[in-house]
Amino acid sequence: MEMKLLFEPRAVAVIGASASPEKIGFRIVENILRSGYRGCVFPINPRGGEILKLPAYADLADIEEEIDVAVIAIPAERVLSAVAACGAKGVKHLVIITSGFSEVGDLETERRIVQSAREHGMRILGPNIFGIYSAASSLDATFGPGGIAPGPVAIITQSGALGIAMIGKTATESVGLSALVSVGNKADIDEADLLEYLADDERTRAILMYIEGVKNGDRLARTLSEVTRRKPVVVIKSGRSKRGSMAAASHTGSLAGADEVFDSVMRQCGVLRAESVQEAFTWVRYLATSPRPPGEEAVIVTNGGGIGVMATDACEKHGVRLYDDQPVLAEAFSDVMPDFGSSKNPVDLTGQAKAEDYGKALTAVLKEDRMHAALALYCETALFDTERFAGLLREIYASYRDRKPIVFSLFGGERIESAIRDLRGEGIPVFGDVYEAVSSLGALYRAARREQEGPDAAVALNLPIDEIHRVLAGARAAGRTFLLAPEAAQVAAHLGLGMPRSVLARSLDEAVRAAADIGYPVVMKVVSKDIVHKSDAGGVALDLESEAEVIDAYQAIRRSCLAHVPDAVIDGIEVVEMVCPGVETIVGARQDPSFGPVVMFGLGGVYVEVMKDVAFRAAPVGRATARAMVSDLRSYPILLGVRGEKRKDIDAVADVVVKLSHLIDRCREIADIEVNPLVVYAHGEGTRAVDLRILIKQPKGVS
Amino acid sequence: MEMKLLFEPRAVAVIGASASPEKIGFRIVENILRSGYRGCVFPINPRGGEILKLPAYADLADIEEEIDVAVIAIPAERVLSAVAACGAKGVKHLVIITSGFSEVGDLETERRIVQSAREHGMRILGPNIFGIYSAASSLDATFGPGGIAPGPVAIITQSGALGIAMIGKTATESVGLSALVSVGNKADIDEADLLEYLADDERTRAILMYIEGVKNGDRLARTLSEVTRRKPVVVIKSGRSKRGSMAAASHTGSLAGADEVFDSVMRQCGVLRAESVQEAFTWVRYLATSPRPPGEEAVIVTNGGGIGVMATDACEKHGVRLYDDQPVLAEAFSDVMPDFGSSKNPVDLTGQAKAEDYGKALTAVLKEDRMHAALALYCETALFDTERFAGLLREIYASYRDRKPIVFSLFGGERIESAIRDLRGEGIPVFGDVYEAVSSLGALYRAARREQEGPDAAVALNLPIDEIHRVLAGARAAGRTFLLAPEAAQVAAHLGLGMPRSVLARSLDEAVRAAADIGYPVVMKVVSKDIVHKSDAGGVALDLESEAEVIDAYQAIRRSCLAHVPDAVIDGIEVVEMVCPGVETIVGARQDPSFGPVVMFGLGGVYVEVMKDVAFRAAPVGRATARAMVSDLRSYPILLGVRGEKRKDIDAVADVVVKLSHLIDRCREIADIEVNPLVVYAHGEGTRAVDLRILIKQPKGVS
Repeated sequence: MEMKLLFEPRAVAVIGASASPEKIGFRIVENILRSGYRGCVFPINPRGGEILKLPAYADLADIEEEIDVAVIAIPAERVLSAVAACGAKGVKHLVIITSGFSEVGDLETERRIVQSAREHGMRILGPNIFGIYSAASSLDATFGPGGIAPGPVAIITQSGALGIAMIGKTATESVGLSALVSVGNKADIDEADLLEYLADDERTRAILMYIEGVKNGDRLARTLSEVTRRKPVVVIKSGRSKRGSMAAASHTGSLAGADEVFDSVMRQCGVLRAESVQEAFTWVRYLATSPRPPGEEAVIVTNGGGIGVMATDACEKHGVRLYDDQPVLAEAFSDVMPDFGSSKNPVDLTGQAKAEDYGKALTAVLKEDRMHAALALYCETALFDTERFAGLLREIYASYRDRKPIVFSLFGGERIESAIRDLRGEGIPVFGDVYEAVSSLGALYRAARREQEGPDAAVALNLPIDEIHRVLAGARAAGRTFLLAPEAAQVAAHLGLGMPRSVLARSLDEAVRAAADIGYPVVMKVVSKDIVHKSDAGGVALDLESEAEVIDAYQAIRRSCLAHVPDAVIDGIEVVEMVCPGVETIVGARQDPSFGPVVMFGLGGVYVEVMKDVAFRAAPVGRATARAMVSDLRSYPILLGVRGEKRKDIDAVADVVVKLSHLIDRCREIADIEVNPLVVYAHGEGTRAVDLRILIKQPKGVS
Repeated sequence: MEMKLLFEPRAVAVIGASASPEKIGFRIVENILRSGYRGCVFPINPRGGEILKLPAYADLADIEEEIDVAVIAIPAERVLSAVAACGAKGVKHLVIITSGFSEVGDLETERRIVQSAREHGMRILGPNIFGIYSAASSLDATFGPGGIAPGPVAIITQSGALGIAMIGKTATESVGLSALVSVGNKADIDEADLLEYLADDERTRAILMYIEGVKNGDRLARTLSEVTRRKPVVVIKSGRSKRGSMAAASHTGSLAGADEVFDSVMRQCGVLRAESVQEAFTWVRYLATSPRPPGEEAVIVTNGGGIGVMATDACEKHGVRLYDDQPVLAEAFSDVMPDFGSSKNPVDLTGQAKAEDYGKALTAVLKEDRMHAALALYCETALFDTERFAGLLREIYASYRDRKPIVFSLFGGERIESAIRDLRGEGIPVFGDVYEAVSSLGALYRAARREQEGPDAAVALNLPIDEIHRVLAGARAAGRTFLLAPEAAQVAAHLGLGMPRSVLARSLDEAVRAAADIGYPVVMKVVSKDIVHKSDAGGVALDLESEAEVIDAYQAIRRSCLAHVPDAVIDGIEVVEMVCPGVETIVGARQDPSFGPVVMFGLGGVYVEVMKDVAFRAAPVGRATARAMVSDLRSYPILLGVRGEKRKDIDAVADVVVKLSHLIDRCREIADIEVNPLVVYAHGEGTRAVDLRILIKQPKGVS
């Protein structure tokens, strides 16, 4: 484990340690000592002396012991030499607090720092961070306010200010931390490195990440995809809006905002995306402590019809399924159901219910094996003893907390507020709002489903990559960044994409033979470098149904083109299979600036452009993921067949998606590839790739 | 003001008053006395005696004073006779607490109670409610927990349990109430009645409604539409989900859930719809106390980049525009901007900022006339004195609270939490979450825009209603609930909808003349009662471009139909103008079970069916609203013209929407009317209503 010594160092040096309490270098040493760090601490300060009763070393080289982590908090201009000194000393990890590098435009110094560290086999956290806290070694090497309580939640944050403020927030929300890591500029260590450690760390039961921008997104996606199968990851990503977002728009990117890509890839990786910090805290707290549900069927118990209906609405929104076997429900609650109550789920005990009734009903849910999770809702009533009730909830929770997920939502005045505060302080999942309770349970269900999911069989696809590389190399040798139609057709053939058959006819005879060979109807198009706008020159004829029409068209095209461009050299006339109408779709793939290879699918024309109805995934994908992309679309019913039409060949679509996703992953020199339209026919009848457009990257050094 | 005496009664009788503290009848009298009601209270109890030191009357008739409100809290079976007694006494309003009527299926008794009250000129609140609180007369006539603080917010709730719990919630959230009304079964008085009073009530500055189901929705919509121009209304509606919703599906309803209609109509009425009770409280609290913004341009001031970006994202989502004149921003913050900070909006003072800097920056925003609202965000830092900061916010808020909207969002630990609690308690809009702060400001902007909106000029549309009635009457006389094609064509002609021209030809000659008259191409269709499926019988011919083709088609249709149905009586062959292709849309209108007449617009085919891309409004609508329906659609760009196509004739579409909306409003016997498709051409070229389907209501007594 490469990161182990970062989280569990045997000794830490603080370069820039200070005796002045207002200095960051003082604060860090103070936090390390106060947090009860189990290893040795060495303050480094050129003036020597004593810092917080520890002897300060003038030079790192003076220390005899091995140093695993050096925290660097000195002015930016002195960092590079400190890094060299650490290298000489054999330090393993650098935690560079100092700011003033790439975030203010100085990429060069940052690059040199990383290079120097690499040369010495050191890894760097930061720069531009507030430090790291690790419960594994009781180490708070941050300049935060201190007092971090250990617990099951790990936080990785790209924002320093927010991260420091989170320390206080974890205390007021009773969220204990296994780790808190500030990643700052991510010059070297990034989220993926940290996740690999946290995935194995037994203390960590849930992970929260605050992300502003993604670097090396393909590795992050791969790592997340693994980690979420073992423990839940909640992400807050700022910059969802156009204004907030700094992501550059590429061609496919302009079809949907870059946030669409992030969002799709996160879902693909099984990550739970929270909208606000508050929501992320609420979820992660619950995810870290709740048992997983033994099944999908939840039951709502309430003493108020209104909040019961609101919870039902929220269950639909958050993917929580409600148990519906009415005879079992009626039986389970027969003892406690008042006259006007309802044993239908949501189970409504009405405002008449006493605390005992409520307790019995909730216990009935938790005891019944066919009911898998409980949503316990309560409205303060004038007739109900809140104190008693809180005690009851405490007892029930203690008895069943390890067996089934429970969420409580209490609504009312001061007594309820104080009950909520007390119960939450004890770690009981009590919420003041029905929506928060349901969204937490929904997050738990999503996490649990992910944990049970098998990996998407990443089909070992046999693409003739060498042959495709050769085609691309040809285009690049000709100084082009795009493929000509015949080149694209070659790639399509290598991929086994069904493109319309096409023959270049150099004479009328050849055209007639080609048409007969391809089968009617056909399309004819002039082939000439001199004629750019074929249609305008009369160089295209559609829907030719017979030999006679082909003969007429051949002559008409030649005549019309020569009339239009008198000196045109006509290479011949292309005879092309006419594609039958079907559902038009688009399959695309590109190198995303954040996530590397991504694949895209949408329905053709206005669905993508106007309705923004597009699915993205990190590439490559297997069959199951490709099919999920298809069914994710709002326009999916069109492929299922609307208005009595037949179901379309979704498997054939998925096949094209899988192929393009593997191609973009294995040919990184392809910048962008798009089949548009991919015409889809009825189930079993396949697809036709009408047009394939491939852009390749500019060779380096050419602008 | 019909409701004035309900909110401001001079004397209240409590029928069913009790001396036993556990009884509702005791609780109500106790609350009335404790709330400091300024009028007289008369407990009524057949056993007489004394209740809470007041003499109890055995009979209402024994009281000499006039009684404006009688609160009834006696068993259901005795309510009807009590209502009669109140009628005899000349009571003005009944507040019927008792439950066990229509909500448990006893519609008959409820109907008789209302009838009896009407005969005596009395209005009824309830039954099945917890009562009413009115700050205007310091009257708490509920069986709630008491202790309601007066203030600027009025609450109308359909859920009793939730309403009672809200009393406590208002206290912990420091929301003072002008009124709290439980409407229960809404047997007589409904939200619209109450809103009319509250609109004029000077104490009430914002209104919160919890709605489960809508009765008399057209009146509610009209009333809301007026009220929201004077003060903001926030609605929570439960039952948004399929499972939660009880609304019956009618044909158009099946296109989109009934919640779509509710949601559209609320937006049309300028109502703010909250998703949760918590959100509703947050908004209403802010709306009731904040000044309206002098303009659209808000500024974010933050000491943390991360929360600044999150706030920016949230601003886009909630429709808050950010000020963007960079030279003015740079100038405004030049004094306080640290090296690494950014004067771009969101203005980032960075974690380096001291409390003074922060205060100066915020003051700069509030002083600058070109900046219209301030979002002040703060992340707890180790270097910043939270106590000091809280004092600073307090001062700034006090100076500018009446001039510009301000929201604060503070994020951090215990000191921050306690600052938030204290400041909120003082009525300062401080939030713990950036999203809450921005959503509140967004709600304020929406409310302010509504308050400035002119009424939608409800075009006094001159429809030949009498003529249309006559057509409908003809169909009804024939025992039909639908119109035949020629009848529908008559209605279309009366409405001035451009339908394809059509002539019934009874001979080949007539067909040829008709085609020449209409202009080629034409469509021909057999007209025969005996041939139901015209296409199957070969009774339809499309795209006939010449006299020769018309002659061929005429003969082919006759031959084929007679081969198919040998005994068929053929009335003739219809020659119809062939409609040129254009954008297909659907305009519909119907009597909605909740809202009465509503009008619907969507793009044709899959857009409505698959993409659920539909806009609804309560009818009738004027031009501006009709145009807003068009631009509300996600598929709107298709009408604006995509891929270089021309802009479509949106005015002509709006014209059809307006006409159908007026028709459905004025002809209540029309159950459902749909133009499908309405083909739309380029701007200035109008529309063609290809098919018009009209369903009429079953005459009463016919099943």
